[in-house]
Amino acid sequence: MTFEDLGHTKVDYDRESRNGYPEIIYGESKTAEQTAAIIEKLIQKHGRAMATRMSPEKAEEVLALHPNGAYKENSRLLIYGEPAVLYNGKIIIVSAGTSDLPVAEEAEWTAKWLGCETEIIHDVGVAGIDRLLSYRDVLQEASVVITVAGMEGALPSVVCGLVKRPVIAVPTSVGYGAHFDGLTPLLSMLSSCSSGMSVVNIDNGFGAAYQAAMILKLASEGASS
Amino acid sequence: MTFEDLGHTKVDYDRESRNGYPEIIYGESKTAEQTAAIIEKLIQKHGRAMATRMSPEKAEEVLALHPNGAYKENSRLLIYGEPAVLYNGKIIIVSAGTSDLPVAEEAEWTAKWLGCETEIIHDVGVAGIDRLLSYRDVLQEASVVITVAGMEGALPSVVCGLVKRPVIAVPTSVGYGAHFDGLTPLLSMLSSCSSGMSVVNIDNGFGAAYQAAMILKLASEGASS
Amino acid sequence: MTFEDLGHTKVDYDRESRNGYPEIIYGESKTAEQTAAIIEKLIQKHGRAMATRMSPEKAEEVLALHPNGAYKENSRLLIYGEPAVLYNGKIIIVSAGTSDLPVAEEAEWTAKWLGCETEIIHDVGVAGIDRLLSYRDVLQEASVVITVAGMEGALPSVVCGLVKRPVIAVPTSVGYGAHFDGLTPLLSMLSSCSSGMSVVNIDNGFGAAYQAAMILKLASEGASS
Amino acid sequence: MTFEDLGHTKVDYDRESRNGYPEIIYGESKTAEQTAAIIEKLIQKHGRAMATRMSPEKAEEVLALHPNGAYKENSRLLIYGEPAVLYNGKIIIVSAGTSDLPVAEEAEWTAKWLGCETEIIHDVGVAGIDRLLSYRDVLQEASVVITVAGMEGALPSVVCGLVKRPVIAVPTSVGYGAHFDGLTPLLSMLSSCSSGMSVVNIDNGFGAAYQAAMILKLASEGASS
Amino acid sequence: MTFEDLGHTKVDYDRESRNGYPEIIYGESKTAEQTAAIIEKLIQKHGRAMATRMSPEKAEEVLALHPNGAYKENSRLLIYGEPAVLYNGKIIIVSAGTSDLPVAEEAEWTAKWLGCETEIIHDVGVAGIDRLLSYRDVLQEASVVITVAGMEGALPSVVCGLVKRPVIAVPTSVGYGAHFDGLTPLLSMLSSCSSGMSVVNIDNGFGAAYQAAMILKLASEGASS
Amino acid sequence: MTFEDLGHTKVDYDRESRNGYPEIIYGESKTAEQTAAIIEKLIQKHGRAMATRMSPEKAEEVLALHPNGAYKENSRLLIYGEPAVLYNGKIIIVSAGTSDLPVAEEAEWTAKWLGCETEIIHDVGVAGIDRLLSYRDVLQEASVVITVAGMEGALPSVVCGLVKRPVIAVPTSVGYGAHFDGLTPLLSMLSSCSSGMSVVNIDNGFGAAYQAAMILKLASEGASS
Amino acid sequence: MTFEDLGHTKVDYDRESRNGYPEIIYGESKTAEQTAAIIEKLIQKHGRAMATRMSPEKAEEVLALHPNGAYKENSRLLIYGEPAVLYNGKIIIVSAGTSDLPVAEEAEWTAKWLGCETEIIHDVGVAGIDRLLSYRDVLQEASVVITVAGMEGALPSVVCGLVKRPVIAVPTSVGYGAHFDGLTPLLSMLSSCSSGMSVVNIDNGFGAAYQAAMILKLASEGASS
Amino acid sequence: MTFEDLGHTKVDYDRESRNGYPEIIYGESKTAEQTAAIIEKLIQKHGRAMATRMSPEKAEEVLALHPNGAYKENSRLLIYGEPAVLYNGKIIIVSAGTSDLPVAEEAEWTAKWLGCETEIIHDVGVAGIDRLLSYRDVLQEASVVITVAGMEGALPSVVCGLVKRPVIAVPTSVGYGAHFDGLTPLLSMLSSCSSGMSVVNIDNGFGAAYQAAMILKLASEGASS
Repeated sequence: MTFEDLGHTKVDYDRESRNGYPEIIYGESKTAEQTAAIIEKLIQKHGRAMATRMSPEKAEEVLALHPNGAYKENSRLLIYGEPAVLYNGKIIIVSAGTSDLPVAEEAEWTAKWLGCETEIIHDVGVAGIDRLLSYRDVLQEASVVITVAGMEGALPSVVCGLVKRPVIAVPTSVGYGAHFDGLTPLLSMLSSCSSGMSVVNIDNGFGAAYQAAMILKLASEGASS
Repeated sequence: MTFEDLGHTKVDYDRESRNGYPEIIYGESKTAEQTAAIIEKLIQKHGRAMATRMSPEKAEEVLALHPNGAYKENSRLLIYGEPAVLYNGKIIIVSAGTSDLPVAEEAEWTAKWLGCETEIIHDVGVAGIDRLLSYRDVLQEASVVITVAGMEGALPSVVCGLVKRPVIAVPTSVGYGAHFDGLTPLLSMLSSCSSGMSVVNIDNGFGAAYQAAMILKLASEGASS
Repeated sequence: MTFEDLGHTKVDYDRESRNGYPEIIYGESKTAEQTAAIIEKLIQKHGRAMATRMSPEKAEEVLALHPNGAYKENSRLLIYGEPAVLYNGKIIIVSAGTSDLPVAEEAEWTAKWLGCETEIIHDVGVAGIDRLLSYRDVLQEASVVITVAGMEGALPSVVCGLVKRPVIAVPTSVGYGAHFDGLTPLLSMLSSCSSGMSVVNIDNGFGAAYQAAMILKLASEGASS
Repeated sequence: MTFEDLGHTKVDYDRESRNGYPEIIYGESKTAEQTAAIIEKLIQKHGRAMATRMSPEKAEEVLALHPNGAYKENSRLLIYGEPAVLYNGKIIIVSAGTSDLPVAEEAEWTAKWLGCETEIIHDVGVAGIDRLLSYRDVLQEASVVITVAGMEGALPSVVCGLVKRPVIAVPTSVGYGAHFDGLTPLLSMLSSCSSGMSVVNIDNGFGAAYQAAMILKLASEGASS
Repeated sequence: MTFEDLGHTKVDYDRESRNGYPEIIYGESKTAEQTAAIIEKLIQKHGRAMATRMSPEKAEEVLALHPNGAYKENSRLLIYGEPAVLYNGKIIIVSAGTSDLPVAEEAEWTAKWLGCETEIIHDVGVAGIDRLLSYRDVLQEASVVITVAGMEGALPSVVCGLVKRPVIAVPTSVGYGAHFDGLTPLLSMLSSCSSGMSVVNIDNGFGAAYQAAMILKLASEGASS
Repeated sequence: MTFEDLGHTKVDYDRESRNGYPEIIYGESKTAEQTAAIIEKLIQKHGRAMATRMSPEKAEEVLALHPNGAYKENSRLLIYGEPAVLYNGKIIIVSAGTSDLPVAEEAEWTAKWLGCETEIIHDVGVAGIDRLLSYRDVLQEASVVITVAGMEGALPSVVCGLVKRPVIAVPTSVGYGAHFDGLTPLLSMLSSCSSGMSVVNIDNGFGAAYQAAMILKLASEGASS
Repeated sequence: MTFEDLGHTKVDYDRESRNGYPEIIYGESKTAEQTAAIIEKLIQKHGRAMATRMSPEKAEEVLALHPNGAYKENSRLLIYGEPAVLYNGKIIIVSAGTSDLPVAEEAEWTAKWLGCETEIIHDVGVAGIDRLLSYRDVLQEASVVITVAGMEGALPSVVCGLVKRPVIAVPTSVGYGAHFDGLTPLLSMLSSCSSGMSVVNIDNGFGAAYQAAMILKLASEGASS
Repeated sequence: MTFEDLGHTKVDYDRESRNGYPEIIYGESKTAEQTAAIIEKLIQKHGRAMATRMSPEKAEEVLALHPNGAYKENSRLLIYGEPAVLYNGKIIIVSAGTSDLPVAEEAEWTAKWLGCETEIIHDVGVAGIDRLLSYRDVLQEASVVITVAGMEGALPSVVCGLVKRPVIAVPTSVGYGAHFDGLTPLLSMLSSCSSGMSVVNIDNGFGAAYQAAMILKLASEGASS
């Protein structure tokens, strides 16, 4: 049986063998009951589970049913199972401003849960470029860099010009007016003049970390031709 | 008489006394005949004239009628009257990429024609930040900085963080796809995390230089309270 | 040490020497605790501090920790340190309608805090042009003009045609329907037929005042070539 | 028979009795043959005909078949039948810039053909407000005002504040960059702070004149309760 | 004195002589205190006053200070002074659906207050065209027709094809999804295939009625050449 | 073998058994050589072939290689194999204006080629509603109605209110300005107040006919439970 | 009498004879009183009634007045009258994710109420394609397929390639960031590479089911030529 | 010297040491002369060079000056220096349709030039899912997958659900109408329900390959902690 039908949801047990990781729950529009039911099945199957975009209230309801999880309030992640470092290399997460922290931490905890070592460099937006440049050597030690930026989203272009490794850019909804809830940094990151960079959805720290973990996994397992 | 009516156009003779500079012709959708007629009147009144966004063909037609002008092919400006430095201070124009040159030169020649000393720093986009940083001292000598950038438009945010003087940002239509003919750098410049910066229309090197010249003029004449 | 790392934030002590003014806090998405911690550091370093976009609740929390500040409710600014006039010249702030007042006052208080003399002319939108024209002489005494307008954003084009000095246009989110929360006056200001004008983000009275102060500072210090 | 079927087209003979004027041909995407066939039927029925948005080439082809028409090159109208003044009152067409002339003339010739007296005031954009204000008395004699403006589209707001009569605003595609082919003045006119104004499609001088003529007709015939 | 300065507002006393009607207050973003202060001045000057877009709470506060007004809850108008029919002719307001009623009533009460006779035809959207067609004769008695429609905004195109008089179209924010809060009917009305129609902002029943009243006034006073 | 690999293309031989019809070629961005190669394979397999969006030049090149086809210039279809009526029922195609003909004919020929009887009613846009209403009885005989309309796209809403059968709406790119190349009728059709209607892409007469043919096929074969 | 006028609403009694089904109430912006009044009339006329987009609070108010209805909380439908299977064939509703359930159930209950047999397949989004493929045989038994998907809206393209019957695609507002409340799946479904598919408005499960029911009705009644 | 100033361009010699690869020329808006000058410098420094987005005409001009290059007409790449396989692993490029070939080939040749082994799977769009599924085993041998798709851009979501390795999605401008030149697949890829995927700009096969090559390089060199 590759999946199990809970009525509202078909839990995809096969995902780990197909994609390398168990299914992770997109918590945004699911009820606490639905989320709890899926978590139960995932823990039975994989020994661990993770749900994203969980409000504090929903997390509390789920934790009442399955108490062994940890809720990360900033990043709205609900996590079951201890993270362990599985791969060589390190993911460095660079955030442009204090307000981008929740998205940066979503990336951080996702990467940890998926088996990666991480390091965060906070608040190094390009308005004071020397802050970023003081981390130039640190950045060059990363295997993958995740950049998290709202406003005009200029940070990943600069970072990408400083490193040899892939950069994954996450635009955030931090800004106002002509920023259009993150559309502006999204488009600016897609239009970057730097090579070596790709982009995920607005505020999608999870998605960036997921791909970064896949890259570390590949680097650890080695690519065969 | 504050203006003269040519039928198709009312030449605004009063503009110099109101705004500090003679009317400048927006050449885009005017015919060669209309443009030439306005130029004639402006030269009679002010001894000089300038038209923007002139195609080579239209410029040639106008020059056949009024031969003493100079056509700047890159920037599509048609200029009558020799530029002279009228003010203290210097406008530095910084462009992100080779392809942004025509807009940078529109700013350069406009500023010169309005009486300013200018300096251009070309092709210092943020993908190779060391190129820009090697001009750090030069930039700090500017009285006003004009930054010209297409793609993601990250350059002005970085430049603005390096200088004490006002920065005017010009987004350009250089780019493709998610760049939407300059909309993306326009929005990103408006959403900049740097303070001290304002923005003009896409490819509007002229407008940036015009305001920069006004600032230099103010600085030369002194602000009185 | 050019910056200090508070964990969530890297306070940019060097900004005053680079940009002429201390770092100013973008308060929108920071917690009261984060804001208070940064304010403490800025006051230690510079003897004063300012935070923008502070809700009354957050301001109250910060003031409980650092009581010597003043909260400007209309403009949502939290200010530590007395404004003093440092430069010659005057910034005139012109607002189109009664509803644009909060943004106009954000510009006013920012400019004051940065050392500028200011004057406000309220509610002179173009629907009754004689109100604006009655201030024609006053406007011509400005060193810089900041225009604040929602709806169709026509005011700066008219003002810009009346003065010799730079005009900085601030679109506001006052309007409805086809106004799209300020997008319409933003685009219309960028498309203005008047020369000498630049634009900042929607509701960004702060940004306009910051650049205006830089211009006054330049005019006071004099531009050197 | 209220309409006649030509295969490709159903000519609406009843329109004059329903709407007050014969059907007018939207020439943009019709072939010369289709246009000529409809013109023939309309002339048979009403003694006159008009087609809008006719390229010079298409107009020439149609005129070869029906030679008694007049082609207005600027406004791209093809007209059969002499205009005659049928109503009291006057439509004043006010255009912001030289480049808005073709749309202004489309309004002018449409209004004439529909039986109205017209007057055009060209190139009185708000960047030099005194030009417009010098026509203040003239404007107050209009029964209906049509304003034609590209760029930021500020003109109708100012005009509307000066007159007692209805103002119909026509945004034009004259501009570049953030002007988006007329979208910006369209939105700005819809968001106007002036009361008494309505808006038609971009470059739709025809539509403005059609409604203006209906208003003059009503005023001449008198409104009965 | 053509206007009076209340600090926050410059009351435009001259508007009646310039535009035919006293200034009407846009209530949306004004405080109750500001609104009440302006109402007081307008009543002193003109003997009556009107404010649009007043929430029930704000209206109650204002009525506590100036009790002689009437609040129209559906249309959010606050009215001082009895409407009286001043002109010949009739404005017919046609609404597409039950949910468009508030906007239709804003148009109705505005027109009444400005001196017009009105008639409303509710809920005759094009999905059941026979409902509309049963009012065909009634519609032809209108001097001006105001059509109010959300969803796809098809109603004014059909109505406009049935009458000889000007049609003013008001798109409403009634709809969901691809309707984008009224953007879709706004664009569809601007793109109408019917001649004789103009458009006002989304939900702007006030603006449509204002122009309709101006037309009735012109028709009553007669157009002179 | 369910498909054959031509290098540039994998011809999907299985499509007829899966979807009821052979693969049809989207001709827009394919070269004449690629198109001809696919046509050859499809004719070998199914005895017939069809390509959409073929320019006259490309069609000519393909016909030189495979001469037995017929090119429909208006609708840009290239057809191999004689249409035959395979199903009961009739598809009626209703177009709003003369300029919508090419899209209406794309629908017509596609439907014929797929085995359907068709009837076209041209130029019955809602500006002259009586033209459409004169076909009321005819419309009620349709099994499926395809409506084709540009401009404001009001036609399908009215048609859908007149019939018992499914209506498929096709917006066209006929219009200008606020029509945005068909975006406006697309959004207005999606926002329709009429029930029983669905929508396909702009100018996609092909897609509408394809679904209509599927419906006729189902009705002929009968639905089994 | 084809309709009855309730003042706020004209109940369209004729709709059943014209369109095959009684009028169904769009509940979104109607008051409980208006909704209850219309329900009363519809039950009197047709013996049953349905209202869409009813909030729980509004439904409760209406049920207090007309207690024999059933409220479907997920889908926000309020239903009077027992569904009965009237036609041959089956509508299969396929939803991409757990969060799309409410829209899928709106389609399900609407189809049932209109007389159709339905089957739902939940949570078979394309990220785990084997889940969908395991229903391949089931899908081929459908007479019509309704696909409901948020996020990128890829599901209908895949489903449509698997079946011989018409597919109606419903984009949902489930997603975030670049999803723009459903705009992205709406546009992606309209741009689908699969033939045989049409699209309804975002979250419009009702509209999809209505058209699907019409198709089943046609198939049951037979198409006559 | 980290860069050399050619006047129009500052060639970034340091890029190889910073980013792992020499600077690659964005050819779109550069003149043939500028391009040739940069190529000369890059070949002197690195022994090879590559320019993207070269029109055939421009490529011919450059090849006249520097004859040892190879022009790839489909992908518009101009390449100097023989590709050699430098890393373990393989990049598989999957394209949705025949028309996506040029972008797929830009990715292919870029990856080869950067030292990667590549394999292309053409024309496996989701409308015929069995074509894609027949490559399931092949796909699982990839180290990185690049998916290239226009229209609705559904392909990467399906592919990403089938593999353990990172997927980079490239939207293309192949489509029409609601596809908006690639905006629709861009947004749909960003909104994907599949984890492990990131996105680059529309038609940016180059950017996808560049990041893919960086990943292979990391995997070959090994990630160190």
